Amino acid sequence: MSGHVVALSGGVGGAKLVHGLSLALAPEQLTVVVNTGDDFRHLGLHISPDIDSVVYALSGLSDAVRGWGRRDESWAFMAALNGLGGEGWFQLGDTDLAMHVERSWRLAQGETLSAVTARLCQALGIAVRVLPMSDDAVRTRLLTDAGWLDFQDYFVRRQCQPVVRELEFAGAGAAHALPEVLAALTRADLRAVVICPSNPFVSVEPILAVPGIRAALTATTAPVIAVTPIIGGKALKGPAAKMMAELGLEVTGSAVAQRYAGLIDVFISDASDAPLAAIDGVRTLRAPTLMSTNEDRVGLARAVLAAADGR
Amino acid sequence: MSGHVVALSGGVGGAKLVHGLSLALAPEQLTVVVNTGDDFRHLGLHISPDIDSVVYALSGLSDAVRGWGRRDESWAFMAALNGLGGEGWFQLGDTDLAMHVERSWRLAQGETLSAVTARLCQALGIAVRVLPMSDDAVRTRLLTDAGWLDFQDYFVRRQCQPVVRELEFAGAGAAHALPEVLAALTRADLRAVVICPSNPFVSVEPILAVPGIRAALTATTAPVIAVTPIIGGKALKGPAAKMMAELGLEVTGSAVAQRYAGLIDVFISDASDAPLAAIDGVRTLRAPTLMSTNEDRVGLARAVLAAADGR
Repeated sequence: MSGHVVALSGGVGGAKLVHGLSLALAPEQLTVVVNTGDDFRHLGLHISPDIDSVVYALSGLSDAVRGWGRRDESWAFMAALNGLGGEGWFQLGDTDLAMHVERSWRLAQGETLSAVTARLCQALGIAVRVLPMSDDAVRTRLLTDAGWLDFQDYFVRRQCQPVVRELEFAGAGAAHALPEVLAALTRADLRAVVICPSNPFVSVEPILAVPGIRAALTATTAPVIAVTPIIGGKALKGPAAKMMAELGLEVTGSAVAQRYAGLIDVFISDASDAPLAAIDGVRTLRAPTLMSTNEDRVGLARAVLAAADGR
Repeated sequence: MSGHVVALSGGVGGAKLVHGLSLALAPEQLTVVVNTGDDFRHLGLHISPDIDSVVYALSGLSDAVRGWGRRDESWAFMAALNGLGGEGWFQLGDTDLAMHVERSWRLAQGETLSAVTARLCQALGIAVRVLPMSDDAVRTRLLTDAGWLDFQDYFVRRQCQPVVRELEFAGAGAAHALPEVLAALTRADLRAVVICPSNPFVSVEPILAVPGIRAALTATTAPVIAVTPIIGGKALKGPAAKMMAELGLEVTGSAVAQRYAGLIDVFISDASDAPLAAIDGVRTLRAPTLMSTNEDRVGLARAVLAAADGR
């Protein structure tokens, strides 16, 4: 089956399915649109956590045990920074830091985030196209019982402990979707749009908040397939389940599917969960969504593609 | 003997004598004025090589074998940066990088270089006062047979290979000497000013080029003592000897002493060299100036102080 696949992805969980899709497709058949709502500046560096997760997954550099960052990482910089009285709450591995320094420097030279991302992908031998959702800054903020928090303040510094009441994507309204993103979503040979198993609130919805992207998903005749980030009432990683509960939602794949209703054609929940109740206009399927091994990743990617192709 | 000592220092060689002086004096008796003419921006980071050399020497963090940077250094960042196609010509150790990132970030927040330096010294337990010559940018540039070069381009990237014809300290004319530097040089209890065994052209003269500093040395009644950076017709480290030859000077301690004439009262050449010919108004002495061990450093510091005190 030919045709082009566009994947919308956040960080770790999404990056695993992106990796699976990259193993199941030819490089030119896949475009990845990555959330930049949790990008932030730290110690003067521009950090793009989700782009890095996707890039590390695609280049085989991910740390499988830690679940984030680069494998074979060392921490001499952090130890020295702490010794200087520097801000130690955000862990920066020695090799991971190279991404942040190189990216920050290129951005300071006037390069766009998409150009820097393309450059880093090329250096790491990644043939799949990885695109930030926008070159403009969109910043996810959370209204919590501790007030409005920037995403990384909530996510890393406070370890997702505050109760979330509301989210906003600052700058999204004025942001321009990357033209290549809109072009990919309107390709004549579009085979599928895949919403990866990422946190709906802080990974997928910031992408959808960039003007033009949600409309492109609604308008496309290609199937839009979402994969559940919730298995057995829990998120594999990150605060998705906790957030759902705090926002008054049921912590189930079904609630995620309902949140995407009107946008998606297929929702894949985990094989270990009970079949989902019918949702208007959404075909519900089950597949093994745990991606411990590369085989799991390819397996899920193939299940997603089969669903897209109506098989 | 009480009284205050001000040391003017460049990088490695100067930093060793600064360390010796810090071992020979109480912390409150010593102020170090450091060259910032070879500061530069690299990958968006503000790097102050001479300040770092002095700070590492004073905190016991210097790498004795390599002769620059921090001991127990690792290079994971550099390897990763090279893997990303980044600029690899300037070596940034993982722990050294913490200095550059922390300094750059503080500067970007609006802190002055002197405030950041004080902060870093405090974090590393350095009680001696370490001052940049100025908070304003002064940049050493060299006219060479390859044209005008920035200092680090000449020094690191081209490994001092171009022939030097002329030097300039861009920005020096408009720079303000740090008020604490001028205050230290005009203290009533000033015991001595020590010009450390640093490269005269690129380490000491940039300091002297900042308005007010040369005048303060000329005006002070305290003895000004310079220590030779040349031993047996060679510089221990760096391009001082090569530069002297290229600039048409004899490569001797005597030529350095003559260059400082009018400014210094005492010149200390190496014990292994022949006694210097008389120079008008300059008392010439010899002492062991090689500083391999801490004992050597204290020994030279004591010889300098004895000369200052007329002993």
